[in-house]
This record gives sequence, structure tokens and C-alpha cells, in this order.
Amino acid sequence: MIERLAIIGVGLIGSSLALALREAGYVGSVCGYGRNRNNLERGIELGVLDDAADSIPTAVANADVVLVAVPLGAMDAVFRELAGAVADRAVITDVGSAKGSVVAQAGNRLGKKFAQFVPGHPIAGTERSGVEAGFATLYRGRKVILTPTAENDEASIERVSAMWQAAGAGVEIMGIEHHDRVLAATSHLPHMLAYSLVSHLSKMSEQEEIFAYAAGGFRDFTRIAASDPVMWRDICLANNDALLQVIAGFQGELKLVENAIRRQDADALQELFHDAKHTREQLRDL
Amino acid sequence: MIERLAIIGVGLIGSSLALALREAGYVGSVCGYGRNRNNLERGIELGVLDDAADSIPTAVANADVVLVAVPLGAMDAVFRELAGAVADRAVITDVGSAKGSVVAQAGNRLGKKFAQFVPGHPIAGTERSGVEAGFATLYRGRKVILTPTAENDEASIERVSAMWQAAGAGVEIMGIEHHDRVLAATSHLPHMLAYSLVSHLSKMSEQEEIFAYAAGGFRDFTRIAASDPVMWRDICLANNDALLQVIAGFQGELKLVENAIRRQDADALQELFHDAKHTREQLRDL
Repeated sequence: MIERLAIIGVGLIGSSLALALREAGYVGSVCGYGRNRNNLERGIELGVLDDAADSIPTAVANADVVLVAVPLGAMDAVFRELAGAVADRAVITDVGSAKGSVVAQAGNRLGKKFAQFVPGHPIAGTERSGVEAGFATLYRGRKVILTPTAENDEASIERVSAMWQAAGAGVEIMGIEHHDRVLAATSHLPHMLAYSLVSHLSKMSEQEEIFAYAAGGFRDFTRIAASDPVMWRDICLANNDALLQVIAGFQGELKLVENAIRRQDADALQELFHDAKHTREQLRDL
Repeated sequence: MIERLAIIGVGLIGSSLALALREAGYVGSVCGYGRNRNNLERGIELGVLDDAADSIPTAVANADVVLVAVPLGAMDAVFRELAGAVADRAVITDVGSAKGSVVAQAGNRLGKKFAQFVPGHPIAGTERSGVEAGFATLYRGRKVILTPTAENDEASIERVSAMWQAAGAGVEIMGIEHHDRVLAATSHLPHMLAYSLVSHLSKMSEQEEIFAYAAGGFRDFTRIAASDPVMWRDICLANNDALLQVIAGFQGELKLVENAIRRQDADALQELFHDAKHTREQLRDL
């Protein structure tokens, strides 16, 4: 049970957690802070927040759990403000899609409170953003990955785990670098491909008709290209090493396909597609 | 109204058309031919076919409409058999995902009956295949593109149009090369990207965990990698020119993203993603 939850950055992720914890009766009160005052007022209207703070220190003053849910590029500045303001008994967690850079920043900024920071990443979201996009069931049946640091004690990890479980999620523990490689492959790379595909198609001369004749597969494929540009800019900057590695690996695979088409190599194409189909079919229950 | 429809290649596409036309009361009888005898027997059991022929000439002997629904790589051989067997009053159409190569083969093989061939392409499908995958509503509200040749008369085009409309589809007319460019961009390229992504991920050492942590976007994104390898091999071979062009264009866009990540260029990344999001959002009603 959380007495007072502070949410720094009240968007889809933070507000969905607040709504889920309220529904579960797992939180006493929720205080939000964010740069957009209208968004915070809307959060109060929607019953996501009990109150809205004017500053980060005010928001976290009496909190026993602090959720940092700002874009990755804004985390460093938030940690700097948290250092002097968070209570010693509070646990801090975040929702960043890349963990290496966040942990490094937290280590630099939080000083002796770094041990109170348990890094986290809920594998959930939609292409919508802002407090109005939040809903209580976002985390139900989804996974939340925690990547504890050597400084975390079991009690802190357990408090963050219990919070996400109360919101309906399953919690798994993973190493920081491992997390960043896995997410680069399964989430960050697909987003880069979707953005690049839409960019290319928008430049082709047949643009209007191209989109008019786009069928089901294309719709699914490019839906994620409507995701928040600032969030994805920050993910690219934060997880650059792992992302550049998987981009290079992907380019190699696409080159194999391209070369096989160029030399009209029916057997190579069929084998490539057959193997991929086989792999994908093992994921039907995803 | 069609008296006798002959379907050469009784898979998802052909059997769904048969079921839709039956439901609409638009077809008298349906005769199927295919290499897999069990599949044809199953077609009769399922009420897709009235009878199954032992050869292409037998199947089309009394047909007023012949639907060629085999993979692109098998079209040439089918056209060769149709030339001497199709009645003069019959109209022939196909469902190939690339039109230039099909039209060239039909021109070579059908001789003076080439004028009876109206090339077509229903923009519909699922990743399933075979007669059991067919369902009557597959074409409802979907588009079918016809790419008539200079030899087609209006009456032939109209007969094929009317058939697809009876199955619930909207029919549009497009030039052959234009069709092939548009489909390369909106369908063939996305399939190559999905196959390449799954191939790359299946080679990464973290394979099992990578797939375990794949979230919603990834599922949608790679669903099409479960499509039929033979069909896609043939599409690559048939539409190679247009496909190589869009692969090159896509690689250029991905390179822009890669370079921006490498030089940590926040502005360039945000602009790329913002523009793609804007373009994709105009497609919400797709």
C-alpha cells in the first residue's frame, strides 16, 4: 500500500498507473507535477490526481513512492531536483525505455539517495500521449521489467514490484545492459523501421495513391509511426549503442533479401522467408 | 451473374471469392483445379466447390469466367494450358500481386485469347492460406485493382468488375506499372522489412528473451512475417524492379536515422519522427 504517490510527468504512463492503483485501492493520494499546468488541472478533473504541485520538491515532499515518468531527455534535470527533496524513507522509480543512461544520470545526481532508486520499465503503451490517454487497465497482463542496481536493497525492489503488481502487471528482473539490447531489438528498431518506411513513402511521387491502396498489413506495420517524436528522439539518444547495433544487423538482413532479389535467387528467398515465418509462428501466443 | 466459374488454384483468395459469390447468389456453379487433390476434396466438403477437375482444360471447358489464383511463379504454365482450352466467350482474370510480369506472360501464352484476359488484384488477404482459410466476407469493403490491357474491351472489364462488386469489393482501374510501384511501396516492402526484422532477431543471442519481451507494436509489426514464403518468393521475383527501387529508398531513410543517432543530432531525429507521425496521422481512417 502506498500512502502518497508523487508522479513527475503526468502522461499516458503515469496517469494509467495512478488510475490502476486507485482502482486497486493501493494508493492513498496522488500528487502530480509537470510543466504543462493545463494537463495537471485536467488530471485533477479526470480523477487521476488529488493535487498538482508547483515544483518537484513540493510534489515529492511527503511521498513514499516517487514515479519519474518524463521523457528520457528530461530525467537528468528531474534527478537533480530530487536529490535534496526526496525523503529518506521514499523509494524512487522510473519508466524509461532505456536503462543504462538513466542509471548513469541517477548515479551522478542522486548522491547518497541513489540506493533509493529502483530503475523500471513497463512494457506497455499506446501511440497516444498526455493525461487524457491514461486508462486503468493499461498494465493488466503486461510485463514490467526492473533493472535493480547493486545499491538497491531487497525491500526497495519489493516495494516497486508490489506497486506494479497491484496495477495488474507481472514483474521481471533483468540486467541493465541486457534490457537495453532486448528493447533495442524488439521495440526501438521496429519504431525506426516504421518511421523510415512512412518517411520514404511520403516522398514518393505517387504519395496519395500509395496511401489510398495501403492494405491491412501496412496499417498495422506503420501504426507505431504515430508515436510521440520527442519520446523517440530521446530513446535514440539514450540507447544509441544498442540501437545502432541492431540497425546494422537489420540492414545486413535486408541486404541479403535485396541481393537475392537482384540475382533472382528463388531458393535463397524462399529459405529466408520460410525461416522467418517459422520463427514468427513460434510467437503466435505473444 | 456467372453461370460457371472456374478457379485455378483453390487457396484463400479463390475460395473466399467462391463463397462470397455463392452468398450473393451471383454464381451458378464453381469448378476448381489445383495440384493438391486433398485440398480440392476439402473444398467440395466445405461447399466452396461444386466439383473438382483433373486438369485445367477440363476445369475451364464450360466456364464463362476463369479465375487464375495460383502463385505468380505458376501463372505462366497455367496460361499456356488455358490458351487452347478457354471458350471464346469466357473472360479470364487473375489475382497476382504484381501485374507487369503476369501481363507479359499472358501476352506470350494466350495468343489471340489475350484480349479475354483482364488482369486484377484484390487488396485483401490474411497470413493464412489454403481452401480452409477462405471466408465469404474477405472482400467486403476492400479494394480490387484492375489493370486492363490495351486489348481488353469494355464488356470484359465490366464483367470482371461486376464479379468483384458482387463479392462486396470496390473496383478501381490503374495502369500496370503504376500498380506495381504502389504495391511495391505499400505491401511488398513492408513484408521484406518484417521478414528481415524477424530474421535478424532470431539470430541475436538473446533470442528467447527477445521474443518474450516483445510488446504490442512488435506483434503487429511482424505478423506479416508469417505469410506464405512461396507467394512472397514469387512476388519478389515478379516485381523485382519496383521492389529494388523502394528497398533502396527505404535504406536511404533508415541511413538518415542511423546517421542522426550516430552524431546524437536531437533536432534531426525529432524532425524526422515528427514528419512521419504527421504523415501517418493523415491515414487514421485507412
